[in-house]
Amino acid sequence: MPVLHSIGQLATCPPTADQADIGLIADAAVVWQGEQIVWAGPGDQLPGAYAGEPHFDAEGQLVVPGLIDCHTHLCFGGWRGDEFEMRIQGKSYLEIAQAGGGISNTVKATRESSAKALFNKARTALDAMLALGVTTVEAKSGYGLDTENELKQLTVYADLDHAHPIDLVRTFLGAHIIPPEYTEDRQAYIDLLCRELIPQIADRRLAEFCDCYIDAGAYTIDEGRRILQCARNHGLALKVHAEQISHTGAADLAGELGAVSAEHLERISETGIEALAEAGTVAVSLPLASLYLREPYLDARRLIDAGIPVAVATDFNPGSAPSYHLPFAMTLACLNQQMTPAEVLKGATSYAAKAVSRQAAIGSLLPGYRADMALIRAPSVNHWLYHAQANAVTRVFKDGTPAGDSL
Amino acid sequence: MPVLHSIGQLATCPPTADQADIGLIADAAVVWQGEQIVWAGPGDQLPGAYAGEPHFDAEGQLVVPGLIDCHTHLCFGGWRGDEFEMRIQGKSYLEIAQAGGGISNTVKATRESSAKALFNKARTALDAMLALGVTTVEAKSGYGLDTENELKQLTVYADLDHAHPIDLVRTFLGAHIIPPEYTEDRQAYIDLLCRELIPQIADRRLAEFCDCYIDAGAYTIDEGRRILQCARNHGLALKVHAEQISHTGAADLAGELGAVSAEHLERISETGIEALAEAGTVAVSLPLASLYLREPYLDARRLIDAGIPVAVATDFNPGSAPSYHLPFAMTLACLNQQMTPAEVLKGATSYAAKAVSRQAAIGSLLPGYRADMALIRAPSVNHWLYHAQANAVTRVFKDGTPAGDSL
Repeated sequence: MPVLHSIGQLATCPPTADQADIGLIADAAVVWQGEQIVWAGPGDQLPGAYAGEPHFDAEGQLVVPGLIDCHTHLCFGGWRGDEFEMRIQGKSYLEIAQAGGGISNTVKATRESSAKALFNKARTALDAMLALGVTTVEAKSGYGLDTENELKQLTVYADLDHAHPIDLVRTFLGAHIIPPEYTEDRQAYIDLLCRELIPQIADRRLAEFCDCYIDAGAYTIDEGRRILQCARNHGLALKVHAEQISHTGAADLAGELGAVSAEHLERISETGIEALAEAGTVAVSLPLASLYLREPYLDARRLIDAGIPVAVATDFNPGSAPSYHLPFAMTLACLNQQMTPAEVLKGATSYAAKAVSRQAAIGSLLPGYRADMALIRAPSVNHWLYHAQANAVTRVFKDGTPAGDSL
Repeated sequence: MPVLHSIGQLATCPPTADQADIGLIADAAVVWQGEQIVWAGPGDQLPGAYAGEPHFDAEGQLVVPGLIDCHTHLCFGGWRGDEFEMRIQGKSYLEIAQAGGGISNTVKATRESSAKALFNKARTALDAMLALGVTTVEAKSGYGLDTENELKQLTVYADLDHAHPIDLVRTFLGAHIIPPEYTEDRQAYIDLLCRELIPQIADRRLAEFCDCYIDAGAYTIDEGRRILQCARNHGLALKVHAEQISHTGAADLAGELGAVSAEHLERISETGIEALAEAGTVAVSLPLASLYLREPYLDARRLIDAGIPVAVATDFNPGSAPSYHLPFAMTLACLNQQMTPAEVLKGATSYAAKAVSRQAAIGSLLPGYRADMALIRAPSVNHWLYHAQANAVTRVFKDGTPAGDSL
């Protein structure tokens, strides 16, 4: 039973209803057995039974639960750096998409990439994410948009989950955009999703969640309802991309259908807030997308005040959020979503775990939880998110095991 | 004469008037002798005379001039993470300052720090900056605000310049705020600056530049004029903190006095733009300060259109910009100052060199320039600043020498 001792500040991040409650313990220690924490508390109360166990010295650093990036589009072919300059020059995301750029470009490049190439590229990203303290990543399909290529993406995720220390949570996002070959017959693609892809993916357990991008340029609210209801009927849990570029009422739908999470929400209405609060849906905020798209940020205070748990994730993708730097997204959430550092940390741990239906297993450093931990060169959570560094994480434990010496 | 070959893209960043001209050469090589570049061009044109020289392989990476952070407050005691949360909760920079927080806090902590402690703390920052590709740093005093402690800061900078591979450019900022003990007699402190500190610092060559913070809560335009004129009379070159929190006309003054650079400028007027353009003053943009203070960003397009060179720097300090991540500031300048990646790179190299009066020596990778170079894991400048990573820099050459293997 290894012991991590001399922790300057331990943020246990308990799975409580208070977003600001991160369960800080000063001068703390954590004990685990195998993959599971068995004790966490003040170092001077460490039970004598653990005295002879192997010790790791945290050297007074901050220790937080392994971060959970609960919204990414991890696997894709190509990049879209050219659009970065177009957006700087004033073109909107919708204009770029309508000019044949945007997600369609990535669909083309992803279809042309082999599973092996996609695997290797995503693994490189996962290596960098682990070094940043991330131990669980939600990963969406949605750049294949046909049977072969959606299954290819989801299979890459299953393989990565086995091959890499980071745990992957797989989400089917066949309803990302209407694929180019179906723009004249949207109905036929939605039929393909509902009659072929969703049943097959559910049967083969290739994904745990089904997501749908309901917005201008993507799916209508009625189309989204049909797709999400179908997924729910096949036993998939639901996520919804909602109220990002335009207000559609997708947040209301997410609440009505009991979605586990609703993402973006920069243009959410009062009824949408009520619906999410009622349903216990997690709001997943994505400040990097607001930064890169130069769009409004989520008004997180309204949601927190309504009792909605607000998670923070990167939205890593090659268009609107080409960065997997979750701590940087967390600093942005402090500054532009008016969330305190404690609220943001809870949003990237326990509430992010809730957004992937794992709040009882990960995201907290309490007995019974998985021993996923990040050691951070900072005297406090506040200091960590205030003093934005390249990477303040010095060491990561995944499933109780130190994740490489290269950090 | 070492040769760096197999450079995928070389950005030579010539000292030209076009902000977007970064002199790209594909498949390039650079040759240097001692600290100085002797040849740069396409690899297939590398003169045969260099064939037998020691080679470094850039492995197809992007190579740019060593970055120049031309505006920092590098040396300070303490941190101000507590104010980070206050600002998130809606308090303004001015309100925090008036409540006894802000710069005064750092003045207290800096006065209480020994020169050795300040040296060690700043050296840690310089190590991290070097790893991010930064090879020259402008560093301001201004947290001592009395004779002993201003000289202490400037002496720390002189010592760091000798001890660390990064070159330091020293700026006297005794006119940062009015020190707490002089708030009832501002005139007496300004007399101290003009009669004692500026003459002594100029005589002992402890600084090359004199800067003045003209703004609400700092110095008035008339006070600034007196201080800057005095500094100019003693042979110091001028910088001005201008038009940040409020519009004061400080940019007009910077132009009138022939300042080398004017910093911030988020609230610059048309007459201020005309004055800077007329004087050939560099505008130093500080996007991290806008991010952290939740204040407007510089409208860089107006300045570039007026022919003003726009540099990009971090403003690293413990209050309004607690980050020395210059590439991150550069990505912000793309997104929030509507500058293209090429314009931003020029702003952190040749134009930053111009902001510290070294445009003929550093900031460009051309024969006669210093062999300060950063190797970057990216296929292009565009991709580098678009795909924000913890640190994309893989290797740094300073004065022609590889800067450590730890990068």
